[in-house]
Amino acid sequence: MPAAGAPAAKAKYSLLDDYSEGAHPQVLTALLQSNGTQEVGYGRDTFSEEAKHHIRTHLGNQDVGVFFVPSGTSANAISIAACLRPHEAVIAASSGHIVTRETGAVEASGHKIINVVPENGKLTPATINKALDDNWHFPHMAKPRLVYISNATEIGTVYTKAELTAIKRLCEENGLLLFVDGARIGCALTSSKNDLTLNDILELTDIFWIGGTKNGALLGEAVVVKHPQLAEDFEFFVKQHGSLLAKGRIMGVQFSELFRENLYFELARQANRAAEKLSQCIVGAGFALRAETETNQVFAVLPLELVKTLQQNFSFYIWEKYDDEWAVIRLLTTWATDPEQLERFSSIVLHWTK
Amino acid sequence: MPAAGAPAAKAKYSLLDDYSEGAHPQVLTALLQSNGTQEVGYGRDTFSEEAKHHIRTHLGNQDVGVFFVPSGTSANAISIAACLRPHEAVIAASSGHIVTRETGAVEASGHKIINVVPENGKLTPATINKALDDNWHFPHMAKPRLVYISNATEIGTVYTKAELTAIKRLCEENGLLLFVDGARIGCALTSSKNDLTLNDILELTDIFWIGGTKNGALLGEAVVVKHPQLAEDFEFFVKQHGSLLAKGRIMGVQFSELFRENLYFELARQANRAAEKLSQCIVGAGFALRAETETNQVFAVLPLELVKTLQQNFSFYIWEKYDDEWAVIRLLTTWATDPEQLERFSSIVLHWTK
Amino acid sequence: MPAAGAPAAKAKYSLLDDYSEGAHPQVLTALLQSNGTQEVGYGRDTFSEEAKHHIRTHLGNQDVGVFFVPSGTSANAISIAACLRPHEAVIAASSGHIVTRETGAVEASGHKIINVVPENGKLTPATINKALDDNWHFPHMAKPRLVYISNATEIGTVYTKAELTAIKRLCEENGLLLFVDGARIGCALTSSKNDLTLNDILELTDIFWIGGTKNGALLGEAVVVKHPQLAEDFEFFVKQHGSLLAKGRIMGVQFSELFRENLYFELARQANRAAEKLSQCIVGAGFALRAETETNQVFAVLPLELVKTLQQNFSFYIWEKYDDEWAVIRLLTTWATDPEQLERFSSIVLHWTK
Amino acid sequence: MPAAGAPAAKAKYSLLDDYSEGAHPQVLTALLQSNGTQEVGYGRDTFSEEAKHHIRTHLGNQDVGVFFVPSGTSANAISIAACLRPHEAVIAASSGHIVTRETGAVEASGHKIINVVPENGKLTPATINKALDDNWHFPHMAKPRLVYISNATEIGTVYTKAELTAIKRLCEENGLLLFVDGARIGCALTSSKNDLTLNDILELTDIFWIGGTKNGALLGEAVVVKHPQLAEDFEFFVKQHGSLLAKGRIMGVQFSELFRENLYFELARQANRAAEKLSQCIVGAGFALRAETETNQVFAVLPLELVKTLQQNFSFYIWEKYDDEWAVIRLLTTWATDPEQLERFSSIVLHWTK
Repeated sequence: MPAAGAPAAKAKYSLLDDYSEGAHPQVLTALLQSNGTQEVGYGRDTFSEEAKHHIRTHLGNQDVGVFFVPSGTSANAISIAACLRPHEAVIAASSGHIVTRETGAVEASGHKIINVVPENGKLTPATINKALDDNWHFPHMAKPRLVYISNATEIGTVYTKAELTAIKRLCEENGLLLFVDGARIGCALTSSKNDLTLNDILELTDIFWIGGTKNGALLGEAVVVKHPQLAEDFEFFVKQHGSLLAKGRIMGVQFSELFRENLYFELARQANRAAEKLSQCIVGAGFALRAETETNQVFAVLPLELVKTLQQNFSFYIWEKYDDEWAVIRLLTTWATDPEQLERFSSIVLHWTK
Repeated sequence: MPAAGAPAAKAKYSLLDDYSEGAHPQVLTALLQSNGTQEVGYGRDTFSEEAKHHIRTHLGNQDVGVFFVPSGTSANAISIAACLRPHEAVIAASSGHIVTRETGAVEASGHKIINVVPENGKLTPATINKALDDNWHFPHMAKPRLVYISNATEIGTVYTKAELTAIKRLCEENGLLLFVDGARIGCALTSSKNDLTLNDILELTDIFWIGGTKNGALLGEAVVVKHPQLAEDFEFFVKQHGSLLAKGRIMGVQFSELFRENLYFELARQANRAAEKLSQCIVGAGFALRAETETNQVFAVLPLELVKTLQQNFSFYIWEKYDDEWAVIRLLTTWATDPEQLERFSSIVLHWTK
Repeated sequence: MPAAGAPAAKAKYSLLDDYSEGAHPQVLTALLQSNGTQEVGYGRDTFSEEAKHHIRTHLGNQDVGVFFVPSGTSANAISIAACLRPHEAVIAASSGHIVTRETGAVEASGHKIINVVPENGKLTPATINKALDDNWHFPHMAKPRLVYISNATEIGTVYTKAELTAIKRLCEENGLLLFVDGARIGCALTSSKNDLTLNDILELTDIFWIGGTKNGALLGEAVVVKHPQLAEDFEFFVKQHGSLLAKGRIMGVQFSELFRENLYFELARQANRAAEKLSQCIVGAGFALRAETETNQVFAVLPLELVKTLQQNFSFYIWEKYDDEWAVIRLLTTWATDPEQLERFSSIVLHWTK
Repeated sequence: MPAAGAPAAKAKYSLLDDYSEGAHPQVLTALLQSNGTQEVGYGRDTFSEEAKHHIRTHLGNQDVGVFFVPSGTSANAISIAACLRPHEAVIAASSGHIVTRETGAVEASGHKIINVVPENGKLTPATINKALDDNWHFPHMAKPRLVYISNATEIGTVYTKAELTAIKRLCEENGLLLFVDGARIGCALTSSKNDLTLNDILELTDIFWIGGTKNGALLGEAVVVKHPQLAEDFEFFVKQHGSLLAKGRIMGVQFSELFRENLYFELARQANRAAEKLSQCIVGAGFALRAETETNQVFAVLPLELVKTLQQNFSFYIWEKYDDEWAVIRLLTTWATDPEQLERFSSIVLHWTK
């Protein structure tokens, strides 16, 4: 008999997002084993120190600030608040998470977001330049001071080293800081399209974060702050935003497990492989993709009839209606995605005839 | 051999705070068992629904809003932001957590805190009235609109039903909302001095929260919002403050376990009993208490020499220096406090001679 | 001999903006005559009461709240802050003054602006509807709650009664408040294209303001707040934003003079007529307008050579470069615009040959 | 016949505050004479430049930033917002204007005010030090970064050079900036107790303002920003707070007139002399002062019967009730205070017998 509140036995399998399950078993085991130890509160515990050490080792730099926060919205809001003075603005894609999915958290801490139209989900030196050209009339306009990008982007594409280098160069020429939202940075750095290392990300940005929630952890994101001056007071911001957990150890334990060796990247690679498999099946069946599958998101253009059939067994977002007969659906995969369910999904697609 | 990062074998036993250990084993087991299930994100999962149901059952009211957030600072900042318009202020004790330990989070969301001097850690109708009398010159002064109290208070005392009722009456007469910070509400409601039920708290306040972090959970506080209008948009505030966890399930699972039956209150009772034991030993040895031990905090006035001796084996806060020979120390207990360590502590105190 | 600091005798005549001169002489005389009287501070003076009475008479409603503030940016920021709760957003044209010319003042008080592309400078029910359609994913998106428009718009166009009525209807259907920035509402209501009265504006909006700075006053805007509940605490917002002047009398005296009879509208009419004259000359000389001249702004498409010639005697903004040979220039007129200078300007345009 | 809205012929003479009248006649004449000139907007006009030059000459330093804002609350809120990062706090007397009379404007821009108990209206190194001692628990407490004092203070006392020097030294030793609210700095610097020059104030602070509203102007305060880095972006803050007036000229003209020679100080001296006269009469009649009269505020302890008699002809604040028979009243004087009215007031006091 299922526990009260558990989903019905015949529930649809979810490809809705990358946070449908709990933590990776290894991460959970680590939590279990460390549970009884006494630790100092608020992130000064030995596990957090250990996790920072492992992350810094992966970064190739033991001197950067690393701070754990419980959510992506807090990672973004805190980082942006720490970078900007009240009259300074952040440039972001109009599709960016801070623009469309964070309930105005950036504005709530007082800052304007200057929107630019993305290309393939990304910002470019040209589009950032246009934002600068449009925001020059000082002091009547807020001063652009920070560029926000996501890697992977909201549509699953990844930045190449050349692209990121070009953006960084433009930023330096214009006194702008560069910030990368890394909610899915694991998938980005293990993408077949990727040529960036974690050290490259550190070198080419001023501040970025490594998402745990969507890649193996119960919760937690690790914000990496390169500049000592910015890092110095960063913890005040974490605390002021309600994100300094008394039992900071729980994020320390999880990130320690993820970065002790390469678990973090192995999980991301699994997520990408699952997406690639889905992607290949869809293309193999003769259907188009809305965007190339570079990470763990698949955007497939399918006939509405097939979509309805799939919906009987799977849950996923209908991203947009293409026309009266076709729709774009979004499928997300993770390390936890069940290969049998992918087989079942593929089978329906491959055997579907109108 | 201890794991890397684990404290040395001879580490001092900590009585520093009530968040030194992880979660209660039952809570951790629940997390483990629920881990693989697929759930909808952002608190719409079945575990969170279940937890809300259990909490509402304890409250004796199935119609109130219940919202989970990751920390006490976020619980306070979000609740206060949701209650106040920009020109409205909150009245609090000058020793209140929002005044002294939250890095100006309330002010960061734009609101003035009107400080009043507490009596035995508490606000009273008289002191609140004085704050109203001092803040009348509108529109030159921010408008008092909310009263913030903690139960248990910062020094471990608890409000009686008569005290809370008197405050509530004053609030109603003056158009004030009443908010209770319940970081240690478990210990308050299981105190030997307590005559309030959880339902009383609900009836006598407008909004309050039930602390999980300090009483059995890895993290999480449950904000209870009585008025439908306030509850209606409350989730926007949770999200905007970065406190709506993608895997909201992890707070749902924990609170479900804590409130399915009476685990939450049993753990609090254990904490109180441990404090009482410490307290009795101190009084029994002929030393004074700085404040009566009503919950899980003990404030003992001890000779500096004895304090130094205790510090060799235990860590705790020196609350204030009394004079050249005496100091007040603070000892905190929880469900996890080791009885053997309490014995050891007591033994040192009882056998101490100058 | 010119006073120290006075511009050189051969200074260019300015058509840059509508705040180049001081106040209308009648307004200044009123300030002079009232100067010695003792008055109560912070807007409780007899002149402010008188001014409110005159404005309410023009509005046809003695029950609305009227509040004087020193600048357009403060009028906008205060009104928006008073209308919105922290998680609520305002919809505005991407060309709106609050978006492009107020240094993020709206965001600084915590609110997101949802941008929509204007049509002929205006919002329409269709474009507002699209903004609603794009901002539905609650609580992950800020909640649209207010629509901000300007009349006259940033490019000098005016709303018809049908247009404003349609927007108001949409707002009511969707629980949105409607706010009109009236920095140039005098010119709008005296435009030859206008069919709205001040009473219509009151009836069809929830809050709006009447600009004094750009139409006869030294400084000051009058915010009109229709709903009693919104008006009740409005003065707190004025004070908190630093806009409650100790000598509120100086705005009272000026608005009293402008609205005692019809001076406010006569001055606006003069400004419009001056613009019309410029406009006719430009069209008469065979050049195009970038937008129809509906109020006191003229957008003329002129050859770069002619622009250079004009710049020797006049200062004005080059709005945009059309191509290598043409540019759009913006010319602003007011009640103070010197007819002789308009003649001189026209003469250069009419006699210009490449 | 009096103009509509003018106070009745037998109105009480006001000693309520120092902003009951308009501007000094010379200031008004300057506004009149400069009215027709065309000027660039937003404070870039020739009058504002001229005024800055005159003020800098009085300061003995041509390199400091000078910015005009319309009110004291805006001067305080803008200056504090410009000095602090989000997690930094300002230390102020619990009687300070920012604490008690500005509707939480400092908190509205996100900053905590740490209250200290004043001595004779002033802060001292000892009381500031205590605030530092109480606010050390980082990052759980906001970081003290700025000290706010007023000269003259809220009760009319003035800082000596030794006192200000001692505070500045403490600030430098502790990484604190020092900010002086100069709403009544004219009266302070012309007090018989004063030994500070305007240049001393500049040397011994980081930022301060010179109040125009209470000393001869219709409106306007001049914020003086010493450090180039702070001054660099200061105008953004002015604009974002709605305080950058389109016709910035009107503040320029007034401050130019006040500081061209010594009018500003002459007016302040007149105000002080009027207060001294009142003060002497009160003492001469055998009554006590609540605080020594150092500037333009007189706090007199009078029998309630006499207070009632005075109230028939004068309006003033009853500051506090002393006991059943005595009250403290506050009397304010300015350059505009009518000597005949002072005579009348004195006559009543001197001839009063119970």
